[in-house]
Amino acid sequence: MKRRTVLSSLGVLVGASTLSACAPLSNELQFNAAPALSLRGTGDLAVAIARADGKVAIIDTSQEKIIAEVPGLGDLSHASIVFSRDARFAFVFGRDGGLTRIDILEQKITHRVIQGGNSIGGAISQDGSLVAVSNYKPGGVKVFSSADLTQVADIPCGSKTVGLVDAPGQRFVFSLWDKNEIWIADFSKSPFEITRFEDIGRNPYDALITPNGRYYMAGLFGEDGMAQLDLWHLEKGVKRVLPNYGRGEEKLPVYKMPHLEGWAIASGRAFIPAVGRHEVLILDTRTWQEVGRIPVLGQPVFVMARPDGRQIWVNFAHPDNSHIQVFDSETLEPLEHLQPGLGVLHMEFSPRGESVWVSVRDKHQINQYDTESFQLKTQLSLPSPSGIFMTARAHMIGL
Amino acid sequence: MKRRTVLSSLGVLVGASTLSACAPLSNELQFNAAPALSLRGTGDLAVAIARADGKVAIIDTSQEKIIAEVPGLGDLSHASIVFSRDARFAFVFGRDGGLTRIDILEQKITHRVIQGGNSIGGAISQDGSLVAVSNYKPGGVKVFSSADLTQVADIPCGSKTVGLVDAPGQRFVFSLWDKNEIWIADFSKSPFEITRFEDIGRNPYDALITPNGRYYMAGLFGEDGMAQLDLWHLEKGVKRVLPNYGRGEEKLPVYKMPHLEGWAIASGRAFIPAVGRHEVLILDTRTWQEVGRIPVLGQPVFVMARPDGRQIWVNFAHPDNSHIQVFDSETLEPLEHLQPGLGVLHMEFSPRGESVWVSVRDKHQINQYDTESFQLKTQLSLPSPSGIFMTARAHMIGL
Repeated sequence: MKRRTVLSSLGVLVGASTLSACAPLSNELQFNAAPALSLRGTGDLAVAIARADGKVAIIDTSQEKIIAEVPGLGDLSHASIVFSRDARFAFVFGRDGGLTRIDILEQKITHRVIQGGNSIGGAISQDGSLVAVSNYKPGGVKVFSSADLTQVADIPCGSKTVGLVDAPGQRFVFSLWDKNEIWIADFSKSPFEITRFEDIGRNPYDALITPNGRYYMAGLFGEDGMAQLDLWHLEKGVKRVLPNYGRGEEKLPVYKMPHLEGWAIASGRAFIPAVGRHEVLILDTRTWQEVGRIPVLGQPVFVMARPDGRQIWVNFAHPDNSHIQVFDSETLEPLEHLQPGLGVLHMEFSPRGESVWVSVRDKHQINQYDTESFQLKTQLSLPSPSGIFMTARAHMIGL
Repeated sequence: MKRRTVLSSLGVLVGASTLSACAPLSNELQFNAAPALSLRGTGDLAVAIARADGKVAIIDTSQEKIIAEVPGLGDLSHASIVFSRDARFAFVFGRDGGLTRIDILEQKITHRVIQGGNSIGGAISQDGSLVAVSNYKPGGVKVFSSADLTQVADIPCGSKTVGLVDAPGQRFVFSLWDKNEIWIADFSKSPFEITRFEDIGRNPYDALITPNGRYYMAGLFGEDGMAQLDLWHLEKGVKRVLPNYGRGEEKLPVYKMPHLEGWAIASGRAFIPAVGRHEVLILDTRTWQEVGRIPVLGQPVFVMARPDGRQIWVNFAHPDNSHIQVFDSETLEPLEHLQPGLGVLHMEFSPRGESVWVSVRDKHQINQYDTESFQLKTQLSLPSPSGIFMTARAHMIGL
């Protein structure tokens, strides 16, 4: 595994006056009539995606209700969201390459660009000034000003890019599906600098960064194991860890690849969804060795720790996607088995952990549960909900 | 160390119509004329205390300027702040027993009560509905509605109370200076329940809770060692840990007791200010055994980890309170030595760690530094600044 540092000649800097081929759309048609708006804090809001309708819902998690819907967001079939540092603006990454900036307070789109042909996710820089998007088509990463979606940089790399995250030091880290590489784009430098790591393993398909922003880990579709980069020690290069992590020799059927960003880290252990197996793997985060497994009822998709690390919540791929299992993170004993309905796609904890919000696609519902009693507290109606994103993510590394 | 569970007969429930002897003050005189206000997010704001003037400053950390001052807060010589879950309201705990609710957006006091004679700090419940205050005089803890400061509960305990924190499960935990006890008040129950732990060690003077809300640890003024309560396992009672932590047999002169809430936890290690010694102690958070020490230039007061855990920042008691030392959390090597001026009282990191805001009392300045380059980025004028509190604390356990 080789490492090479290349100054930003690899990237193409684009000035504010030199927009990409995909210019901002005219937004006028997409703005909503402004409702009566009043001052309010933005710390207790969430934005949920209604994937079938190309819209998002803004949820007041204190009032426990949907306070607005914002349409006009295009194909949201695999969409995700990051937030500005003031927790006022949401950046929505659509599957169709659309990048949309929503004003949560004014409940409308402020800017929207079709920045690529097929987008898979994005990130916001540590200081909040830059939003990056990774693309399947045409590949590469594009970087925009968070103020107005002016394109700031284009980083072509001849590959689909996946697993794009922000890291401390105004960096973005991402993986190259077609080229088996991990790249770091360092925007603390001007012009920005790219550091490449080659031969990291076949077909990285997704990645995560640990909550402290230190370890970047990419899952490999083409072989077992994970590619791990210690961002505190780039000189050590990319290591292979978890040699048994993957589909294995038999190439297990996988109904839905696990979401790596959902990994749970609690009390020095990481809980990760096995690929194709009905198991959650447990790792020691000091050694990154496997130290145990939890049998679960299906192929896990998201494995999430409650913010205090006391519980591990798991949802599943088809045909088990009507279930949620909850485990004690210490004893590994099952605590609860919920069956909200078909299409449990996402679980988002309130930042201090007293509640969890769950999207139930086929019932067109978002359910809020008390995480101590497991009682249903709230049920909201939203067509085909998928991702739910709390504004508190604005303050977290890698989210 | 005995444990005793007592139902809330120990506490006195006070209905909304039965306010404490200290009724709300008339606030009219303290309200400011409302400036022209517009919609804005509240995620990037901070509130800083100007201790000599009984006022606070509201800082826009994106614009890097003070946008408002709110006077009329009484004696702020040892004041602290917590935030509502929507990050709109700040609750200021004054030394004189004043509890004040400030609307950060409207930049004014909404409610103020003198709830005790001499107050030492407070906390906000997990769900944001309750604000608790610990008192030297008359002792005990009082609990208020965060919506309007209506008193909800009075918990007399015949002792000064210290080290009050919130914990998961709608609990408050605090220590009894005069009675050598730790109490848990569980407000998930109605009426609330008190759990007492007796004989925990002589004269607990302050306490902390680990960032995941699991371990409550009280420093002891009357003897060495710390009292540790595992909130996941109350049945195990209070343990004594760190037998060498304290002033020691020789009773070292201590110019200012370290602030325990400033403990830094990074990569499985805790960095804590030694009492009376020019050292930072390093503990393994799995075993709570000491694993090393860092020599520093004075008696440490706050020992803070940058949010990514990569750096440890230390300030000092008189006569060394013009200094800040920064260490690499991994190698323990010194990275930087700053000398902002006399009276470095507090350091607050931006939530994703790119900046730190430092109050310099005797220069009447608040300095913002870049945490990578250590360059001064911003200097704001504020008379005798002390604590600086970012609204992102709204989303954190124990803050």
